[in-house]
Amino acid sequence: MQIDLSQTVALLSRTPATLNTLLRDLPEFWTHSDEGSGTWTAFDIVGHLIHAEHTDWIPRATMILQHGESQTFKPFNRAGQNEKSQSKSLPQLLDEFATVRAENLSELRALNLQPPDLDRRGRHPAFGPVTLGQLLATWAVHDLTHLHQLSRLMAHQYREAVGPWSVYLGVLQCAGHSSAA
Amino acid sequence: MQIDLSQTVALLSRTPATLNTLLRDLPEFWTHSDEGSGTWTAFDIVGHLIHAEHTDWIPRATMILQHGESQTFKPFNRAGQNEKSQSKSLPQLLDEFATVRAENLSELRALNLQPPDLDRRGRHPAFGPVTLGQLLATWAVHDLTHLHQLSRLMAHQYREAVGPWSVYLGVLQCAGHSSAA
Repeated sequence: MQIDLSQTVALLSRTPATLNTLLRDLPEFWTHSDEGSGTWTAFDIVGHLIHAEHTDWIPRATMILQHGESQTFKPFNRAGQNEKSQSKSLPQLLDEFATVRAENLSELRALNLQPPDLDRRGRHPAFGPVTLGQLLATWAVHDLTHLHQLSRLMAHQYREAVGPWSVYLGVLQCAGHSSAA
Repeated sequence: MQIDLSQTVALLSRTPATLNTLLRDLPEFWTHSDEGSGTWTAFDIVGHLIHAEHTDWIPRATMILQHGESQTFKPFNRAGQNEKSQSKSLPQLLDEFATVRAENLSELRALNLQPPDLDRRGRHPAFGPVTLGQLLATWAVHDLTHLHQLSRLMAHQYREAVGPWSVYLGVLQCAGHSSAA
């Protein structure tokens, strides 16, 4: 299956505003609570999305176009956001994510990719050959995986409060945790 | 655990705008695709949330306050939206959800609930005694369960497109499906 780039971009372009609408000025009970030791808060997720914008998607796409399979992507540091985010507020991070995502989508447009470009290959440090189309699809699903995580970790805060209804609420049964990207 | 009602309302009040930001004018590829036979689309989810506003949360809260455990809630029809939604567009449903949610939060405020009220009990057709606090917590987590489902069903559309990255994307491993409410 090959992606339709306009559909991918339609989704990518909405994520910062979606997170902003959900999280800005929400009580810290929701935005600064996690799912237990070693898990993330909403604040951590937004920092992670910013970090991925800087180090993952467009840098890797550019590497595919310039070097093909001859250079291997740098491994992505899933916790790379922690140090940079700590001194900031959630509203600052939401603004920063919106800015860097818009810049990256502008860079993507400037690449003027045509459908055959999506079959061009790069080299992932763990998977070996991957295509540009797979990378761009992963960019979009990575947004969704963190929206999914966000809804789950927020729901977790009310795990006991819902009482017997917990058995009916799918989000409280979710074990779809991410590993890396 | 007892909920803080202002935190619950902060979340409930954001859901319509969050879904509107994510879904309005998004290509139908994302909004009208499901996860396979018998599963829902984004369109179905918004219709379901509207249906729950009309038949579940405030009607049940009112029944608790008026009748306590002496009356049993009417069972909630999870697929009650289908007939009413079919003739409408997604933008119409998003508008309708925003309106009915705002009306219901206005009704909730008018109840002027105090912390002890959250311990008042009603009778659920399957669970037996439940508290008003549990019902209101479930209202919020029900929003999150459908945001969770939405991110999962959208990600499902790119399950093949992401290629080998699927193993890293938690949303593609999720089995946290809902049953009823």
